[in-house]
Amino acid sequence: MHKFIRNLLTAWRKLGLPFADETFVVAVSGGADSVSLLLALHELRKLKKLNLRFVIAHFNHDLRGAESAKDVEFVRGLTTKFNFEFVFKIPNPKSQIQNQTGNLEQNARIARYEFLGETAENLHAFGILTAHTLNDQAETFLLNLIRGSGLDGLGGMKPIRSREKRVERSESEEKSQIVLVRPLLSWARREDTENFCRLNEVEFCSDPMNDDLAFKRVRIRKVLLPMLQDFNPKIIETLANTASLLREDAEFLESAAAEVGRRQKAEGSFSNDEGQTTKDKGQKIKDLKNLFPSMRRQILREWLKDERGDLRTLEAKHFAAIERLIFSRKSGTTVELPNGESVVKKEGKLEFQK
Amino acid sequence: MHKFIRNLLTAWRKLGLPFADETFVVAVSGGADSVSLLLALHELRKLKKLNLRFVIAHFNHDLRGAESAKDVEFVRGLTTKFNFEFVFKIPNPKSQIQNQTGNLEQNARIARYEFLGETAENLHAFGILTAHTLNDQAETFLLNLIRGSGLDGLGGMKPIRSREKRVERSESEEKSQIVLVRPLLSWARREDTENFCRLNEVEFCSDPMNDDLAFKRVRIRKVLLPMLQDFNPKIIETLANTASLLREDAEFLESAAAEVGRRQKAEGSFSNDEGQTTKDKGQKIKDLKNLFPSMRRQILREWLKDERGDLRTLEAKHFAAIERLIFSRKSGTTVELPNGESVVKKEGKLEFQK
Repeated sequence: MHKFIRNLLTAWRKLGLPFADETFVVAVSGGADSVSLLLALHELRKLKKLNLRFVIAHFNHDLRGAESAKDVEFVRGLTTKFNFEFVFKIPNPKSQIQNQTGNLEQNARIARYEFLGETAENLHAFGILTAHTLNDQAETFLLNLIRGSGLDGLGGMKPIRSREKRVERSESEEKSQIVLVRPLLSWARREDTENFCRLNEVEFCSDPMNDDLAFKRVRIRKVLLPMLQDFNPKIIETLANTASLLREDAEFLESAAAEVGRRQKAEGSFSNDEGQTTKDKGQKIKDLKNLFPSMRRQILREWLKDERGDLRTLEAKHFAAIERLIFSRKSGTTVELPNGESVVKKEGKLEFQK
Repeated sequence: MHKFIRNLLTAWRKLGLPFADETFVVAVSGGADSVSLLLALHELRKLKKLNLRFVIAHFNHDLRGAESAKDVEFVRGLTTKFNFEFVFKIPNPKSQIQNQTGNLEQNARIARYEFLGETAENLHAFGILTAHTLNDQAETFLLNLIRGSGLDGLGGMKPIRSREKRVERSESEEKSQIVLVRPLLSWARREDTENFCRLNEVEFCSDPMNDDLAFKRVRIRKVLLPMLQDFNPKIIETLANTASLLREDAEFLESAAAEVGRRQKAEGSFSNDEGQTTKDKGQKIKDLKNLFPSMRRQILREWLKDERGDLRTLEAKHFAAIERLIFSRKSGTTVELPNGESVVKKEGKLEFQK
């Protein structure tokens, strides 16, 4: 068994994934990473190591016209050759993604994950596989580092996680348990995926967007990482490993913060306004002051996540401002958050307002 | 009052340093950073904001012959002009540093801190001031990142800490409480220190070693950071801020690990060999397995620090190997550490051997 296939099988076991009787949706763009994943899954299925149903899903945001259409046909060809089921989507009109607010890359990414999620739900799949590699992890780490992320962002992508729900669902509707799995993330370098394709004499597409230096991620890949390699030839592995260590630290902090939260609740240190029936609102400033700064940040993160649904659009500067608010001697002051939201200091506690 | 001076005074207050009746040793190389610190301290003394005794200390490792001698005279000139006490040291013979094992930069640094420490002890000083800036912090962060540091190393330099004891002292000897303070670390960029020198029409030396691309730190400063600035013009502040956030996270983890350690001890989960009288030795593997990975790493760090005196020469790969040892099903195996030390798995626990 080739090392690439063996590594995939080892990762599969470590991630605790099922070996039989389940369906997985495999996201395949046609690039070397996803093609190598398809090839290795084909082998593992042939060898009866994985007795699973794999459905190849291709999402083409059609930003490149005829080229995009070619990619669809290329992936369709692969699935026919290796006997996989195939689904694809080309959103129409393409302006759907291009005209949205926000950045093009991100909108395309959201639309792609929506398609994968719907496909997985329709198939009652156990999970979705994407072919992110060590290189993707290193690039994500550097993107977040440059952006000013703290521990949370620097942890990068998780090798396995529950799928984010972007659409609110009614309580009654059954919750889907689909997991998003990145089985190459912890061991495969881009080099390995390309070599594995070549070894199997299978072509792969290269997205010209991957060469467009207008994209930050591309500049990181093509300019920054090669320079870092001069300092440390194993920089990809090093950064991916650092991300993984920091992710574990973040997980511990998160759990410790949850424990502090539970204890505060039990001791009644959460303020309890009678007008508010659903849950205790606000954070007592006295309690916050007594925490380690790291823990205080974590508690504030959890609190705002709870109040807002997520932490998007919140930046380090907002947390720094809330930190100053906590320690300022003035009362009745406010920290403005994006979209007209704010955190207000009032009667010894912090309140979230929108 | 110029912003530079005001910022220094604010930092002084935040660090909880005394405003009168104490002595501080100020490390001055003659570069813009340390000269700006000297100038600002002079102003604060003149304005009676700081009623302290400052002794300027210059350590010249004499690696550049005549040039080094010039630096000594330059700093001596400054101290005369601004009416500071002055001590200096040129170690003789110079080969003392050059012929030691280890790298030149690091040996010079150790010798410099030894000199500063001795000077401070002789003067019964409260602390030692060094002029590290945001830029130094950003460079240290990147050096550690490239080297593969986890949370601990990425926290970078602390703005204040107790001086490391490199020489063992007898228990009876009074412990010195000298603190090492970096009052520019959290706010001053190199640009600011240079501008403040120019504003005061005071020259500063530039060490040609600062331009020698053979040194990693210089390549980081001259090549890597300018490239990162293309991504984020405020990269210096961003990286220094990230280091500061991660340092706070590391401090919390350290304290949480100490609590787990105390609890384990109280519950007797530390093994207790009768042959060992001084303290409980070894780590129970069952206990280690049950911890969050982040916490397990922290506990192992503390344990090895305790056993070895420090963590120097231990790398991420050693901790990864110990982690594998904990989860392997074999017993009686060993992880080799540098200098003939090892961690051995034996009868359900880890033991340190040297």
